[in-house]
Amino acid sequence: MNMKHLFTNILGTFVFENNQLKDQILFKDLKDYLDKEKFEQKLTKKYKKVFEPKDKDLEFILAFFKDKKYFKQFYQKNLLLTKQQIKQSVQDDNLIIQTISSIKELDRLANVLIKRLREWSELYLPEFSKSIQDQEKFIELIQKKNRKQILKELKLTEETTMGKALTKTDIDEILALAKQAASTYQLRRKQEIYLEKIMKKFCPNILELCGSTIGAKLIEAAGSLKRLATFPSSTVQLLGAEKALFRHIKTGAKSPKHGYIKEHLLVQNAKEKGKAARALADKISLAARLDFFKGEFKAKQMRKELEKKIKQ
Amino acid sequence: MNMKHLFTNILGTFVFENNQLKDQILFKDLKDYLDKEKFEQKLTKKYKKVFEPKDKDLEFILAFFKDKKYFKQFYQKNLLLTKQQIKQSVQDDNLIIQTISSIKELDRLANVLIKRLREWSELYLPEFSKSIQDQEKFIELIQKKNRKQILKELKLTEETTMGKALTKTDIDEILALAKQAASTYQLRRKQEIYLEKIMKKFCPNILELCGSTIGAKLIEAAGSLKRLATFPSSTVQLLGAEKALFRHIKTGAKSPKHGYIKEHLLVQNAKEKGKAARALADKISLAARLDFFKGEFKAKQMRKELEKKIKQ
Repeated sequence: MNMKHLFTNILGTFVFENNQLKDQILFKDLKDYLDKEKFEQKLTKKYKKVFEPKDKDLEFILAFFKDKKYFKQFYQKNLLLTKQQIKQSVQDDNLIIQTISSIKELDRLANVLIKRLREWSELYLPEFSKSIQDQEKFIELIQKKNRKQILKELKLTEETTMGKALTKTDIDEILALAKQAASTYQLRRKQEIYLEKIMKKFCPNILELCGSTIGAKLIEAAGSLKRLATFPSSTVQLLGAEKALFRHIKTGAKSPKHGYIKEHLLVQNAKEKGKAARALADKISLAARLDFFKGEFKAKQMRKELEKKIKQ
Repeated sequence: MNMKHLFTNILGTFVFENNQLKDQILFKDLKDYLDKEKFEQKLTKKYKKVFEPKDKDLEFILAFFKDKKYFKQFYQKNLLLTKQQIKQSVQDDNLIIQTISSIKELDRLANVLIKRLREWSELYLPEFSKSIQDQEKFIELIQKKNRKQILKELKLTEETTMGKALTKTDIDEILALAKQAASTYQLRRKQEIYLEKIMKKFCPNILELCGSTIGAKLIEAAGSLKRLATFPSSTVQLLGAEKALFRHIKTGAKSPKHGYIKEHLLVQNAKEKGKAARALADKISLAARLDFFKGEFKAKQMRKELEKKIKQ
């Protein structure tokens, strides 16, 4: 009795009988391949009794497709498949990670710009730079007011200031730098709003529990929401404290109690920060799983429980 | 016989006779102090024979001004004087140093931004990022063309690209980053033009000989044009190669042949780079002195001599 065997690969689904190709349905595109069950059922219906090839039969079939004429087809279809998989691997957490990385970078860049701006502007307004600590306010005011106004406000005269009266061309250059610094801060704020928006859709529980910055940093440190969801809460607690952790392991220094979550208000305001961090990490771990498996939105309740627990 | 003594300090100019204050002209402001000779001459004319106090007389006069009632006046006037000196110490080379430092920083910042932009945009246009090496062109094109156009140009379809079709909101965020990167490059270019402008006025010889970037870097490394003018040419040759120099001193590694001036075309194109660097540093040293002492503009001729010498 000749057994019929059904075999499917990326090229199509095939029926072999007696080590001969008897029938085939070739896949037109990747979509067909992803719907392969449909085509397999078709052939199964047509031939009634078809089996999965085993041992020698399987060996024969595999050797059959090793033929050179299939090589190019396999190569092309596999390439397409891989590309498709790469494309589909782009998830919202990639966007979250890019955004939080960018926010962290913009922070650094804004610092470099403001430091240069202060140093440069101190040539003509040294007392002004010293009088305003807030970076963004400094950028705003130096653009808005001219030297005369600023000197007057600081109760300084041309005689008593240490700053030199620069020409308009020189000052324009400084103001252009101020504008760049201001736009860096603006972009940072814009990205924060965007970050919150995508997190609201993608991981609402984490967002509600940690806020966008800490939440995104945790996802970034884990590499993806999926990985964050698989971490035990003790790992979540220490994400962002890798340096201190390895120092602890290597030199026996004090073990860190918290990573990124130490920036969380619940931890900052707690008396026992270690305990608060542990409780928070517990809930974050839970929230990550809820978000990854598209569970309900429970973070509000979790937050209340947490606040109660930490107060005790 | 009673000798009259003339004594001047920041408060005024005074005539003492017989260890008694006989006459005085108080300075109204710092300008009077800086013009003190005028007032001294007035009193000298009035009293004919006045002498510079010495030994005991000087001791007495100094003790006289040690009195508490002068303290506040001295303090205030000295403060004003110091402020004035600080103000006058702001020279064009301070502007040059701020500008070149800023240009160097903007270079770094633009690199950070473009790296993030490429990584982020590769989520939806991976092949595009790989196809364009030039940073500024990449920034320009990603802003100008939409995904459809770019895919078409690269002969890709939605099926064959590895990039994911992102929503408009997501893409907008990436384009905002591209805009920021573009404006960083623009600001850098603006500062380069400004740098050339102030150097043309302040150190035309250095500018002609080295170009604005290398020239400004040399002034920055020296700390001021004045210091650069006092350096021997062997030091000028190695400015910017401090790391390699100290490594040479410490470990006996090869001594560096050139610092910033290795970026100069004359050195880059020379067969014997060490010799070219030495000849160039010689001329730069000369140019710095010419510029500092406001000498003639000789750099064109120097450059010609140099080109001749290096060719030989």
